[in-house]
Amino acid sequence: MNRLMSIFAAVMIVLSAVVRFGHVSQTLEFFVSAVAIIPLAAMMGQATESIAAHAGPRLGGLLSATFGNAVELIIGIFSLQQGLYSLVKASITGSIIGNLLFVLGLSFFIGGIRHPIQYFNLRVARSNASMLMLGVGIAFVVPTIFSMTSQSNRYTLSFGVAAVSLVIYILGLFFSLFTHREVFAYIEDASAEAEEHGEVKYRLWPAILLLLVATVLVSVESDWLVGNVKSIAQGLGWSEVFIGVVVVAVIGNAAEHASAVWMAWKNRMDLSLEIAVGSTLQVAMFIAPVLFFTSLVMGNPFQLVFSWPELVSMVAAVLLVVVLMLDGESNWLEGAMAVGAYLVLAVGFYTLQSA
Amino acid sequence: MNRLMSIFAAVMIVLSAVVRFGHVSQTLEFFVSAVAIIPLAAMMGQATESIAAHAGPRLGGLLSATFGNAVELIIGIFSLQQGLYSLVKASITGSIIGNLLFVLGLSFFIGGIRHPIQYFNLRVARSNASMLMLGVGIAFVVPTIFSMTSQSNRYTLSFGVAAVSLVIYILGLFFSLFTHREVFAYIEDASAEAEEHGEVKYRLWPAILLLLVATVLVSVESDWLVGNVKSIAQGLGWSEVFIGVVVVAVIGNAAEHASAVWMAWKNRMDLSLEIAVGSTLQVAMFIAPVLFFTSLVMGNPFQLVFSWPELVSMVAAVLLVVVLMLDGESNWLEGAMAVGAYLVLAVGFYTLQSA
Amino acid sequence: MNRLMSIFAAVMIVLSAVVRFGHVSQTLEFFVSAVAIIPLAAMMGQATESIAAHAGPRLGGLLSATFGNAVELIIGIFSLQQGLYSLVKASITGSIIGNLLFVLGLSFFIGGIRHPIQYFNLRVARSNASMLMLGVGIAFVVPTIFSMTSQSNRYTLSFGVAAVSLVIYILGLFFSLFTHREVFAYIEDASAEAEEHGEVKYRLWPAILLLLVATVLVSVESDWLVGNVKSIAQGLGWSEVFIGVVVVAVIGNAAEHASAVWMAWKNRMDLSLEIAVGSTLQVAMFIAPVLFFTSLVMGNPFQLVFSWPELVSMVAAVLLVVVLMLDGESNWLEGAMAVGAYLVLAVGFYTLQSA
Repeated sequence: MNRLMSIFAAVMIVLSAVVRFGHVSQTLEFFVSAVAIIPLAAMMGQATESIAAHAGPRLGGLLSATFGNAVELIIGIFSLQQGLYSLVKASITGSIIGNLLFVLGLSFFIGGIRHPIQYFNLRVARSNASMLMLGVGIAFVVPTIFSMTSQSNRYTLSFGVAAVSLVIYILGLFFSLFTHREVFAYIEDASAEAEEHGEVKYRLWPAILLLLVATVLVSVESDWLVGNVKSIAQGLGWSEVFIGVVVVAVIGNAAEHASAVWMAWKNRMDLSLEIAVGSTLQVAMFIAPVLFFTSLVMGNPFQLVFSWPELVSMVAAVLLVVVLMLDGESNWLEGAMAVGAYLVLAVGFYTLQSA
Repeated sequence: MNRLMSIFAAVMIVLSAVVRFGHVSQTLEFFVSAVAIIPLAAMMGQATESIAAHAGPRLGGLLSATFGNAVELIIGIFSLQQGLYSLVKASITGSIIGNLLFVLGLSFFIGGIRHPIQYFNLRVARSNASMLMLGVGIAFVVPTIFSMTSQSNRYTLSFGVAAVSLVIYILGLFFSLFTHREVFAYIEDASAEAEEHGEVKYRLWPAILLLLVATVLVSVESDWLVGNVKSIAQGLGWSEVFIGVVVVAVIGNAAEHASAVWMAWKNRMDLSLEIAVGSTLQVAMFIAPVLFFTSLVMGNPFQLVFSWPELVSMVAAVLLVVVLMLDGESNWLEGAMAVGAYLVLAVGFYTLQSA
Repeated sequence: MNRLMSIFAAVMIVLSAVVRFGHVSQTLEFFVSAVAIIPLAAMMGQATESIAAHAGPRLGGLLSATFGNAVELIIGIFSLQQGLYSLVKASITGSIIGNLLFVLGLSFFIGGIRHPIQYFNLRVARSNASMLMLGVGIAFVVPTIFSMTSQSNRYTLSFGVAAVSLVIYILGLFFSLFTHREVFAYIEDASAEAEEHGEVKYRLWPAILLLLVATVLVSVESDWLVGNVKSIAQGLGWSEVFIGVVVVAVIGNAAEHASAVWMAWKNRMDLSLEIAVGSTLQVAMFIAPVLFFTSLVMGNPFQLVFSWPELVSMVAAVLLVVVLMLDGESNWLEGAMAVGAYLVLAVGFYTLQSA
């Protein structure tokens, strides 16, 4: 499995270099680098988890919570450099609705086919539900709505919101890793169990080396990917928003998607939720603020102001998932509902593209 | 009771024919056919339930879930024929807020006067809550919000949304009738009990005959009703939206309203919820998509795009009812809140009429 | 403590009279009267509670529920007299988000530092959650959204909404004081306990006298405060909305804030919630309707139509707090989330000010 992935990654990297330097086709270049990122992202994820396992539960949890979506961060920074602000916001949107509706929905559905009713930790689900309400339902809504009325001071608002989100995210880590660790203990147990079963792959130094190499390669591929977004948009008639919501969001998360569904199949719903909802919170309350501060440092700040379709999609996804999660149970129908909601939104963004 | 209703229906049908062919008054014609539909709708409901009881729990559940709101479907189709698109959408809106707030609220209130706290099945309530979030909170919101940005491709979006809603509705039936039947078992038990107490009225063939005759008569009356909407709108200064939200929505549901409240009075809250919330889901996820596909076949498609007041009313009603339901309990104050919310919305639609 | 507060109040009153009649500065006059109101509001609160304790649980509950936010009512009426409608609505907004997010959040946070998990009565929390959905999520949303479409008949809508809110609020009192008193019994118990510990301060007649005197003084100071809002707005570049949301909302509630947090510290979460959420409901469903009817009687009615930022802030605050409350538990992270949400909104209103 691991070897297969390494070979796949190597082939895709060579292929994308050939396509790029042979000036074959920009469309091809875009898709080849997109596909190349998928195994690289998976390897970064495995390396991060291995380092986290060696670092012990607390430092390890911190590592996962900050480097877990590094690919999205890298693609985001390259997009900022190219001034593709709507691509950045669209990929945040896509990541949030994709994780919440598609990944969680597929996990509930696939897990629910095998197990009639699946249970998960209610306290964690409730904590996550409240975080989603704050991190998306308030932190993304306020700048968008308030900037409709007032054009000035937008950066002040984005700055305040990004700072608050980041602080609460860090407090949330402190909560789950220190003051209320016992509530989240099952996740460590499950991770430890996974380790015993040989699911953690690397020793410390090889893992660090792998992380470094994979990060560099992802950066190169991201640069090529983002550099072709505009020509793709023109060539295929897709909008930046559609590319961000669907393409970019999928490639950064493909590996996580697979493991969330796999955990659900094995009836480990807490890990499944941790991946899907934890990823969402990380994008909303860590990646998005960090991208904002990065853009500030780069001297070309963007605002955390979303379009109506993006905002409504994210809020609707959050509200649906809050209702689905708050009972501490899932079944295949709940999964089907979430996937159905994702399809509705995907069709929506598809119809926007040709506008 | 039954005989009384038959006589009432017969009198109203004769009366409406006299008014129509005697060219007495269009206003009178509108109201007489509206009143005539009420006992006919009740008879269709009884016939459907009797057939369902004979067909066994699964096929029977399927029948109730598809024919239960046949009157709304018939009125909807006649409205489409006349091109009264805003009437169709207003009556969908009225049916949803009427069932969720007025019927459920009155059931909670009346039941709560007799029983301090009433309980209902939490799993069913949660499943219904999630379905409402998807079927109204996402499926109706997305086309409306996304079409604000882009004018093109609207039918694509309505098509996708209608298809997804319908598929999830059918999966929901499969869930409650097959894979998770035991969760919903109490409803069958209660129905069986009702049968023993002589509440099921007809044998199979008389029931089928009754259903056919009542359907034909409802169609005739619906044709007359809808044909006079425009002159009524002019004559009384009511808007199509107000007529749809209040008048059409009430006449299609009057019989169900009565039985939901009656069930609550007898402390059978699960049946009461089944009628009120089940009806809402049927209108949102079955009638609305079927009307959309019908309009497509008729070559004159309408979009599932609602006005802001309609959309906000439905979403607010769903959110309030989700909060009311998720505790698995009700009392008279919760009922008063829902009825109060309905009154606020009704006043709102009334003030729109003269605009 | 009490003596200290009386001396503080006396000093501030004298000071504000000197500033006013000495024509020192309008800015100073505004702030001095603002500060003077804080101890006076606290004294009115103590007097009301003492009278309530003497009046027995039912009449007492009624008294607290109607006079508990008398200061806000007084400031509101003086604002109406001056035609400062946006100040009135902004102070309603500020009072709601301040009580729900800042006061409740700080209570959860401070209480949670000492007690890992704190519990409160689930039935009361759910009842309050539903009331918030109705009193803010529907009663404030409908007039604002519906008036976007239709300009006429706005007062009809505000009238209907105010009447329904007031009736449901009164029914809610009837529910908690009469028909379902046992559900709320712990609050009485806790009050009785508080009384034993000497927390109730005055005998009946001194309390009534104190209430009268403090009310007159608050009225005088409110008149001076409100009279300087316009010059403050010009002088400091603050908007009426910012002054209402932040300044006016804080001074009317400072004493309550302190006692809610104090109760949380003592692990009496039910009393803490009662103060924070009870106050919110009182402002939304009692003060706001009474102010509307007062404006009607004064012949210069205002509408219950809010700006988008105000409306979205209140709805987002309600939804977050509903999710936080519905589990019947709190911890310091939940508190931090609510305070974080308040900060986001406060920054938002700050950026509006200079627009």
